[in-house]
Amino acid sequence: MAKAMKLVYFFGGGKAEGRADMKAVLGGKGANLAEMTNIGLPVPPGFTIVTEVCDLFYRGGKKWPTGLEKQISENIAKLEKVMGQKFGDDNDPLLVSVRSGAAVSMPGMMDTVLNLGLNEKAVQGLIAKSGNERFAWDAYRRFINMFGDVVMGVAHEHYEEQMTLLKKKRGVELDTQLSADDLKELCKAYQEVYKKHVKSAFPSDPRKQLELAINAVIGSWQAPRAIKYRQLNHITGLKGTAVNVQAMVYGNMGNTSGTGVCFTRDPATGENVFYGEFLMNAQGEDVVAGIRTPLPIAQLTEYLPKCHAELLKIKSRLEKHYKDVQDFEFTIQEETLYMLQTRTGKRTAAAAVKIAVDMVGEKLIDKKTAVLRVDPQMLDQLLHPTFDPKAQRDVIATGLAASPGAASGKVCFSAADAEVQAEMGEKVLLVRHETSPEDIGGMAAAQGILTSTGGMTSHAAVVARGMGKTCVAGCGSLHIDYKNKQITAGSTVVKEHEWLSIDGTTGQVMLGRVATVEPKLSQDFETLMKWADGFRKINVRTNADTPHDAQVARDFGAEGIGLTRTEHMFFEGDRIWAVREMIMADDEPARREALKKLLPMQRKDFEGIFKAMDGLPVTIRLLDPPLHEFLPNDDKNQQEMAARLGVSVDKVKAKVSQLHEMNPMLGFRGCRLGVVFPEISEMQVQAIMEAACNMQAKGVKVLPEIMIPLVGVRREIEVQAALAHQMAKDVMEKKKVKVKYMVGTMIEIPRAALVADTIAETAEFFSFGTNDLTQMTFGYSRDDVGSFVPKYIEREVLNRDPFQALDQEGVGQLIEIGIKKGRSTRKKLKVGICGEHGGEPSSVEFCHRVGMNYVSCSPFRVPIARLAAAQAALRK
Amino acid sequence: MAKAMKLVYFFGGGKAEGRADMKAVLGGKGANLAEMTNIGLPVPPGFTIVTEVCDLFYRGGKKWPTGLEKQISENIAKLEKVMGQKFGDDNDPLLVSVRSGAAVSMPGMMDTVLNLGLNEKAVQGLIAKSGNERFAWDAYRRFINMFGDVVMGVAHEHYEEQMTLLKKKRGVELDTQLSADDLKELCKAYQEVYKKHVKSAFPSDPRKQLELAINAVIGSWQAPRAIKYRQLNHITGLKGTAVNVQAMVYGNMGNTSGTGVCFTRDPATGENVFYGEFLMNAQGEDVVAGIRTPLPIAQLTEYLPKCHAELLKIKSRLEKHYKDVQDFEFTIQEETLYMLQTRTGKRTAAAAVKIAVDMVGEKLIDKKTAVLRVDPQMLDQLLHPTFDPKAQRDVIATGLAASPGAASGKVCFSAADAEVQAEMGEKVLLVRHETSPEDIGGMAAAQGILTSTGGMTSHAAVVARGMGKTCVAGCGSLHIDYKNKQITAGSTVVKEHEWLSIDGTTGQVMLGRVATVEPKLSQDFETLMKWADGFRKINVRTNADTPHDAQVARDFGAEGIGLTRTEHMFFEGDRIWAVREMIMADDEPARREALKKLLPMQRKDFEGIFKAMDGLPVTIRLLDPPLHEFLPNDDKNQQEMAARLGVSVDKVKAKVSQLHEMNPMLGFRGCRLGVVFPEISEMQVQAIMEAACNMQAKGVKVLPEIMIPLVGVRREIEVQAALAHQMAKDVMEKKKVKVKYMVGTMIEIPRAALVADTIAETAEFFSFGTNDLTQMTFGYSRDDVGSFVPKYIEREVLNRDPFQALDQEGVGQLIEIGIKKGRSTRKKLKVGICGEHGGEPSSVEFCHRVGMNYVSCSPFRVPIARLAAAQAALRK
Repeated sequence: MAKAMKLVYFFGGGKAEGRADMKAVLGGKGANLAEMTNIGLPVPPGFTIVTEVCDLFYRGGKKWPTGLEKQISENIAKLEKVMGQKFGDDNDPLLVSVRSGAAVSMPGMMDTVLNLGLNEKAVQGLIAKSGNERFAWDAYRRFINMFGDVVMGVAHEHYEEQMTLLKKKRGVELDTQLSADDLKELCKAYQEVYKKHVKSAFPSDPRKQLELAINAVIGSWQAPRAIKYRQLNHITGLKGTAVNVQAMVYGNMGNTSGTGVCFTRDPATGENVFYGEFLMNAQGEDVVAGIRTPLPIAQLTEYLPKCHAELLKIKSRLEKHYKDVQDFEFTIQEETLYMLQTRTGKRTAAAAVKIAVDMVGEKLIDKKTAVLRVDPQMLDQLLHPTFDPKAQRDVIATGLAASPGAASGKVCFSAADAEVQAEMGEKVLLVRHETSPEDIGGMAAAQGILTSTGGMTSHAAVVARGMGKTCVAGCGSLHIDYKNKQITAGSTVVKEHEWLSIDGTTGQVMLGRVATVEPKLSQDFETLMKWADGFRKINVRTNADTPHDAQVARDFGAEGIGLTRTEHMFFEGDRIWAVREMIMADDEPARREALKKLLPMQRKDFEGIFKAMDGLPVTIRLLDPPLHEFLPNDDKNQQEMAARLGVSVDKVKAKVSQLHEMNPMLGFRGCRLGVVFPEISEMQVQAIMEAACNMQAKGVKVLPEIMIPLVGVRREIEVQAALAHQMAKDVMEKKKVKVKYMVGTMIEIPRAALVADTIAETAEFFSFGTNDLTQMTFGYSRDDVGSFVPKYIEREVLNRDPFQALDQEGVGQLIEIGIKKGRSTRKKLKVGICGEHGGEPSSVEFCHRVGMNYVSCSPFRVPIARLAAAQAALRK
Repeated sequence: MAKAMKLVYFFGGGKAEGRADMKAVLGGKGANLAEMTNIGLPVPPGFTIVTEVCDLFYRGGKKWPTGLEKQISENIAKLEKVMGQKFGDDNDPLLVSVRSGAAVSMPGMMDTVLNLGLNEKAVQGLIAKSGNERFAWDAYRRFINMFGDVVMGVAHEHYEEQMTLLKKKRGVELDTQLSADDLKELCKAYQEVYKKHVKSAFPSDPRKQLELAINAVIGSWQAPRAIKYRQLNHITGLKGTAVNVQAMVYGNMGNTSGTGVCFTRDPATGENVFYGEFLMNAQGEDVVAGIRTPLPIAQLTEYLPKCHAELLKIKSRLEKHYKDVQDFEFTIQEETLYMLQTRTGKRTAAAAVKIAVDMVGEKLIDKKTAVLRVDPQMLDQLLHPTFDPKAQRDVIATGLAASPGAASGKVCFSAADAEVQAEMGEKVLLVRHETSPEDIGGMAAAQGILTSTGGMTSHAAVVARGMGKTCVAGCGSLHIDYKNKQITAGSTVVKEHEWLSIDGTTGQVMLGRVATVEPKLSQDFETLMKWADGFRKINVRTNADTPHDAQVARDFGAEGIGLTRTEHMFFEGDRIWAVREMIMADDEPARREALKKLLPMQRKDFEGIFKAMDGLPVTIRLLDPPLHEFLPNDDKNQQEMAARLGVSVDKVKAKVSQLHEMNPMLGFRGCRLGVVFPEISEMQVQAIMEAACNMQAKGVKVLPEIMIPLVGVRREIEVQAALAHQMAKDVMEKKKVKVKYMVGTMIEIPRAALVADTIAETAEFFSFGTNDLTQMTFGYSRDDVGSFVPKYIEREVLNRDPFQALDQEGVGQLIEIGIKKGRSTRKKLKVGICGEHGGEPSSVEFCHRVGMNYVSCSPFRVPIARLAAAQAALRK
């Protein structure tokens, strides 16, 4: 017979069966408890039930897999031996915590049960052992409450009610004023509450308690908030959560006990300082939940200097061992330090960059590791605007600078309202006393989060940093009134849906909408990007329509322009009138007349862009949108247009109606315009080539790439390329300047990818327009998907919005077909991407993998693409 | 050295170098002149310049290819020898005709030059030989005129002017009243006209004349009307036109001469009768051009009985040899018969069917050949309605029944106007004295063609039959007044754009719009279709939404329903109110309440369809269109809706606005509705399965196939199929009936084809929805392509409208990927097509080739699909 599968891993007594690299099996918490045990850190012993059990549990009709019960029994025996205690013992009972822990950290997502093992007999044992009757009964009543709530779903408020009744009866105000006898009485009342709601007595058998608790942890894996968290964070492919059963230690055993959460470096700035918070005489959950505001870790020297020194050593030991910043939890029980958890510390983008660069300096990691360590998507935080230092700040309060950034939004007092408002297109600020896992959706929808209680490691702070959201936490001077839907700060009152701004770098809360400025990048950032560029194999270009944008992108490291949308220039100033005149023209000569007016304007734009991109390639796309986009739809503007162009209003209306389309996305646009009205393409190519010749004559190195949009059939590119080459030849002959240029196409129609071999016979380059390609491959109108795509993601019909991250399975398949076929007829075909996906890390990795020459994205995403491209090259 | 390429083929003296099967090389006319020579028919000798020369000419900068001049010289020498005549001889000069002839017959498309070889000297020879001075000078002046017009582009009117002047001078009215001397004088005047416009003297050297004429014929290959004809008829892949140089014979040499055009059977009805027309003392072009109305061929017995008898023999000889109906031209020169051309006779669909079936009976051809002989597309003519015999007919005139059918339209007097009106969506009737090749576009745009002159073989008649258009020709009692834009028939006046109806089977012209009835199919048709079914490998289903349509299709031979659009039922009667109530519902319970009202209606529809399709599979597609299609857009109807549903008008308007989409084609529709509102799919599946159970209990054999529309990602079909199976199970358990059913999907989104392997894991069948697949693969909105697709076809950017004939290169590639991937995970996957393409012959052939199980098309196209499928199987 095959050896029974190992379902439980023990740790304790100085060694463990697991290791840090077994996260997939033991979950992050379990793997690191094992690792810390192995490297000699003081970890309370225990055992971990593997993640596979969670999977088997759901697949097997919510039953324990074969062998689990036996292995648990063996491990409990082991634990009892190491601890020298026994489950349910009336002298020295073994008490345990039961905690979840998946392979990927999900802060606050999973439920925890503490003090498990207590019953009428064991509580006597605990009294005997601790010599503290009040502590023992308090532990017991907490256990009944937590077990009832977390494991059996008996709402916490039912227990609270009993507590309130008793306090009233005793005439006291605080829990701490209740005596041991009071708490003993409360345990009885709590058991009655349990019995009333669960319809059976509170389980006194510790093994039965453990069985139910394990099932509850496993059950929490499929709780709605856990599912939502995984969706928001694109966490897929996990087997489930592991279950950690660990001997209890108590931070609430009096004034030489305590608990805390630390980071080995500052997770907001990345500075190499010991960073953390603690609470004396408290249990761990009190710190994380953000209910009591804890003290900075440095102050521990005032309470327990030895423990503080020991923590400093552990901080250093952890970083040397893990070679990364650790976020760990500890508990001190009567001056003895215990490590309860360690994990890779979440950090802001700025901190991630600084830490990565610093650690290379400290020789903890090499440059490759440093480049791989920073999540490219997070750089977005650094590239977003900050508040303009010159803007007036009407500061009404200052809280903790919990997650950097500048956020302005309309005040919402509930996650639900925040989601509703955001769906309506509003920018919102979520304002809460504190946040809880139920608020995840609202936090994701908000520009930023503002809380009145809770510290730097509170739920709001940790989650906001993970999301890259601006957060000001623990702003105690604000009175947040849910009922009347208003915030009071002194004499200032801010009502629901009024504008408020928060500065996550200073902690300031300001009235109204404060102006922002472009970000400034640190030296560490430059260093890291330089390293990344060294590893990167593909180029990064930008999408830019103006000389200014081109310059910004170049400053961010863009190596050329992958997309200039000429039509964006059409709306500027008086140009729209020439465009409208062209559209209204009755015949070709009249159209040419109007186009003549546009020519010098377009030429001037191109000259500016060529200058900004001196020495780098510039891809210019010919007119793409349908012509009706340039015409006014309302009466007033139609009248103005008629008057200005000297035609009748009826004629304007007739033209608007004639150009109206049922599905403009699939209509008369792109090269279809150029094929039907060649004079438009001619004017644009003339402007491009004249600008190129003019600038080259002035010593600027120009590399124009003329891009024909929306090609779907071979003849389109043949006809338009022939026209472009002819015009280029004419211009160069006239100007007596020779410019190196190319004519290529966008591949954005599924058919173009399918017949790419025929298109590449003419096109000298391909640029995948993945926005349109995604629209047509999925049959999704980007303007209309709001009605179902969010629900699709919610119901896991789609994993991610395909307009955000490239759909590699479907759209990606077309891209691969397109590249393969294109290079079958033109071996050296240059291939790039110019959709929004060009700046999204997983999509950049795809582009690298399928052999593109470059990606192109908006200026602010250029660094993200550079880093993502480097990581793609390193991972390959 | 390689042997020089053979560019010229000789025929004459009883044998020829070419054969009938060399059409690609010699063109249709050249190949058949050779064939007729070889089988001993009286053909004037000559030679054919191969089509390759036309290609080489255009590719080589409009120059003759090497060796052509030499080979022409050799063949002229041969011709002079056979004829015993010499080019330019003053005793007996060789005169030739120069005619075009491509591999595919293009009636009237190419220019012809007659009497070539005449000059001042040769005209004397012609006088000497013919002894007819007037004839000789008349031939000469006709030649100068024709050569100037056709070869050098000197407009005919310039010559006409001289003729008119001379007639005035002589005080005569008719050409025939001019004397030999007058014509001699006219030759001089014509030469002056030539000189004035061409800026050089009329070429007297016959070799020079020939060279220029050959170039003109080759030049006519690229004339706009030739290009248009090829476009309209989807003629591609030809090298060009051949050039036929042939010794002249004269039908205009007096009263024992004549010329005519015959068909070996009646091309309108297919009856095995000798059919044709002739004109005494006329040249061939006079008959074809339809300027003089010719006499029926039977009357030739009255003029030249011997020739008539000889023609009867030739008719029989030709059919035995070619095994098909021939359309041939002859000329009688002083009682001697000459054959000038033969080709496969164009025929109406009815004739094609009758001829094919008759010829099998006559043992001329076998059944396979018969099935291959009828163009499936032509069957459309037989399946279209005819005038209702009970409808009142206000007949104003009767002409020749030139091409059968029933056509009603608004009268247009020019091809250009017909095209404009048709583009605006009007049904038009093209009314002309006679048509000419320039009218092709207008004829294609018209419902039918009516002419006042010209016979059964006139341009209008021949082209209309080829196009399958209704035509009444030679309706001499109509006075067609182009200038005042009206038709007068006795006292009746019909103005431009008034309605007129023509019956191509009776020749009647009727006022207004006469009602039509469904067609009746002949026994021959049934016979041919039965043979076709014997060869066919794939099934033919129909798209039908009602029991009536289902029955019609079944009568046409449909073997099941490939597509029932459930939403079409939603508009009927009071149902729309239940649908609107469902759309307006605020939540799921309210939606279910409204859906409950729809359930019995849908169930009843399905019962009717199952009954009509007893024993055959019925594919039912769940709701597909976006919901806004069911809401009213105008104020009045919105008010009615609000009142009826008891909600505020604002609420109705808000819903309309909420559901509005930028690109509805790519919006919230198809299975996206069912995924977001599962209760809609549930109701529909319940209705289908309840109907199936009910009918099966009544002894009807039901085979429902539930089709989930617009699937693009795997989870969509998983979710919807699970729902359908659950509902089917519930219904069958409740009804205690077991029904064999399937759940499958439409593949109509490019992504679905690309990930078909994952979809086929759940879907039990695929039906390619090629309408939407074409829209998304091309990025063409079917509603909006009018702005560019016609121009694309005109400019040959597209060969055909991809919504009419499946684009095999692009869309077809996706279909092939979809089938291959689908069958990789489900080997026996049933695959069909249910777009408009399912009834288009080239698309049906594609479906056969890629291994589909069936095609589905509209009821009236079922026979077309059956025949096309049979031909596909036979050709493979």
